[in-house]
Amino acid sequence: MNYQSMSREELSALYIQLQEQYEDAKSRGLSLDLSRGKPCAEQLDLLDGMFTCLSAEDAFDGGADYRNYGLLTGIPAAKRLFSDLLGIPESRLMVCGNSSLNLMYDALSRAMLYGVVGSERPWCKEETVKFLCPAPGYDRHFGVTESLGFELIPVPMTDEGPDMNVVEALVAEDAAIKGIWCCPKYSNPNGMTYSDEVVRRLAFMKTAASDFRVMWDNAYAIHDLYPDEPDELADIFALCEEAGNLDRVFYFSSTSKITFPGAGVAIMAASEANIAQITKIVTMQTIGFDKLNQLRHVKYFGTAENIMKHMRMQADILRPRFERVEQILDEELTDAGIGTWTHPRGGYFISFFAPKGTAKRIYQLCREAGVVLTNVGATYPYGNDPDDSNIRIAPTYPTFEQMEAATYMLTLCTKLAAVEQLLNR
Amino acid sequence: MNYQSMSREELSALYIQLQEQYEDAKSRGLSLDLSRGKPCAEQLDLLDGMFTCLSAEDAFDGGADYRNYGLLTGIPAAKRLFSDLLGIPESRLMVCGNSSLNLMYDALSRAMLYGVVGSERPWCKEETVKFLCPAPGYDRHFGVTESLGFELIPVPMTDEGPDMNVVEALVAEDAAIKGIWCCPKYSNPNGMTYSDEVVRRLAFMKTAASDFRVMWDNAYAIHDLYPDEPDELADIFALCEEAGNLDRVFYFSSTSKITFPGAGVAIMAASEANIAQITKIVTMQTIGFDKLNQLRHVKYFGTAENIMKHMRMQADILRPRFERVEQILDEELTDAGIGTWTHPRGGYFISFFAPKGTAKRIYQLCREAGVVLTNVGATYPYGNDPDDSNIRIAPTYPTFEQMEAATYMLTLCTKLAAVEQLLNR
Repeated sequence: MNYQSMSREELSALYIQLQEQYEDAKSRGLSLDLSRGKPCAEQLDLLDGMFTCLSAEDAFDGGADYRNYGLLTGIPAAKRLFSDLLGIPESRLMVCGNSSLNLMYDALSRAMLYGVVGSERPWCKEETVKFLCPAPGYDRHFGVTESLGFELIPVPMTDEGPDMNVVEALVAEDAAIKGIWCCPKYSNPNGMTYSDEVVRRLAFMKTAASDFRVMWDNAYAIHDLYPDEPDELADIFALCEEAGNLDRVFYFSSTSKITFPGAGVAIMAASEANIAQITKIVTMQTIGFDKLNQLRHVKYFGTAENIMKHMRMQADILRPRFERVEQILDEELTDAGIGTWTHPRGGYFISFFAPKGTAKRIYQLCREAGVVLTNVGATYPYGNDPDDSNIRIAPTYPTFEQMEAATYMLTLCTKLAAVEQLLNR
Repeated sequence: MNYQSMSREELSALYIQLQEQYEDAKSRGLSLDLSRGKPCAEQLDLLDGMFTCLSAEDAFDGGADYRNYGLLTGIPAAKRLFSDLLGIPESRLMVCGNSSLNLMYDALSRAMLYGVVGSERPWCKEETVKFLCPAPGYDRHFGVTESLGFELIPVPMTDEGPDMNVVEALVAEDAAIKGIWCCPKYSNPNGMTYSDEVVRRLAFMKTAASDFRVMWDNAYAIHDLYPDEPDELADIFALCEEAGNLDRVFYFSSTSKITFPGAGVAIMAASEANIAQITKIVTMQTIGFDKLNQLRHVKYFGTAENIMKHMRMQADILRPRFERVEQILDEELTDAGIGTWTHPRGGYFISFFAPKGTAKRIYQLCREAGVVLTNVGATYPYGNDPDDSNIRIAPTYPTFEQMEAATYMLTLCTKLAAVEQLLNR
């Protein structure tokens, strides 16, 4: 029965009943975690062969000795592999170290210290730098720009990506707005993929800043839960080229959730002009990236096709988890009419929207019962969810049973908080 | 016979004779390189076992799964290993990625964007940032600070390290001087180790800047050519602590020339207060460093003692090279009285000082005869050697025979340039 249509007496009775369930659950001394967007051990176990696939003889390619210094922007075979996998010309690719977040941070830290192609001056010489943050979004994106002292401007998310009416109006007017964060495929946390129209508008929109950047974090480029019917993301490079805005995109991806988080390979892609400007600075920054780990990835997979096969095995592990979480949410909450959630076809998260004004309370109730959720608000700039509603669910890391138990607890706490709110009206 | 005491006629005759030798050598179409401070294949071949020493079962330590996210400042076993090796408390250590140059660049780029412990404001908000560059020194150090827009101030090197009278006078007076580059053991390129007195004065000196930093690049910490009688470097942390200046040191090292350049492990060490400030920012910058490569190093070596054993094998490869280069220089140049050179007991370079005003000419003559030297001037800030004298010799990378041939060519070109200079007097 829908909570909204319940009488005060019915709600009071329900509250007592929910409280009993909650106290009972609490007494079981749970210790569960739905907060971490990490692969589970089963996914990583698929890669045992990667530890030993590379031997000393593999380290030579033509005249090159990959054990030694050199090849700042990556080994040719790794560039070919990522080019095939992501459909990006090798001339726009840098194959780098183990963390795409680090590449994003460095890209913006360079913008601060040197500017980017099209900048009149380093961004640190500007009075203010503002950045658009479609929200809910990825807390660590927002963290990077907050750390660098940018002003974060929230932009609402729609089912098709950021609300482009809002984005276009803001960037057309304010030259201090230097960029926008995007996780365009299986978005963190909503799980939706930007529509072709949104990508086109991002590519074509007029920006007051001559050095505006779209931070295109394609973290879940091939992380399909339904590999036979994957979401299709429009080609941002092609559209930007058509629009005459090729320098606008900074594209990032990694194998952090293909192979090992922390021991994968990350890439940055951008126009040739951007890559030239960046390479000149990176030459001063580092002696190069880990070529042997790049080679290890090339040796293990061989082809982009084999990477896609590997992702199918991962999908088989993850799909039942996402389906089960949605099933529990549906069974427990649909009739009550409390909460909505997204239906991702890939990526690492389900986004749950509790009744407005209850997310913090739900977090607290879960915490007291031993279930850790992602910090409420984390999916918004400055950790501030104006609706106090969004909760990011990460079903990948716990065991299946722990995931189920934690999701049940989330639904129980959502009911409790919803009833409390209705009683306090 | 000493060139200085030769008559004009003798010099002219000598010049014709040297020219003939040079043309003869040139006609052999050499292609040799004395410029690169890279390990040779023989050194890297010692490490074949490192490629396959790690297997999936090793990735677990207590509750930790090193295949997954976590442990931002390094795995405990790697901290222990580097702590033993370098005599630095684990609480002051971060075990990071593959490039210590990257750590140095990042340390100063953070100083620009955030300041360091003791800063009144981020360095990018200062009108000028100046940095002391003991010269000859490492071109990539100077490159980092030049890239970040600092003003580079050359400081003369003595046989014991930077000229501390000059350093002390400068830093006491000018608060815009924020730091000094140091390669304190088997210094690049002179190969000497800073005396205890120099280290003590660096630790104790009064600086006008409240946030002065000693960039302590201990790149050759254990790279002894004579492991039974290694140079001993004073403990900068102990001295700074005694002086009440513990926050002054940013210490760096790596396994780039212990294991694989580009696929090694780099560390940064600093006071607990510095590490706390840095960690807070690095948390925003990256998801962490490559723990599996850290683990690979721990597994392969096990103990600091085994690393020292490995360095003995490397020394056996490198020592004959350094001795042979010095022998050729001595045989060819001592009697002529042209040029001096250093006598390093470790590290990667011999520093050659040609007669003032001839280094560029020698570089050009070598180049035309197919021998590549380190860019003349590179060992000075802005690439400007005021004496046009210093040439960095890197004997490690070519084959032994190529190294000999290139060194002979260097001596021949030095003679030619010296005679030219004397004839043009």
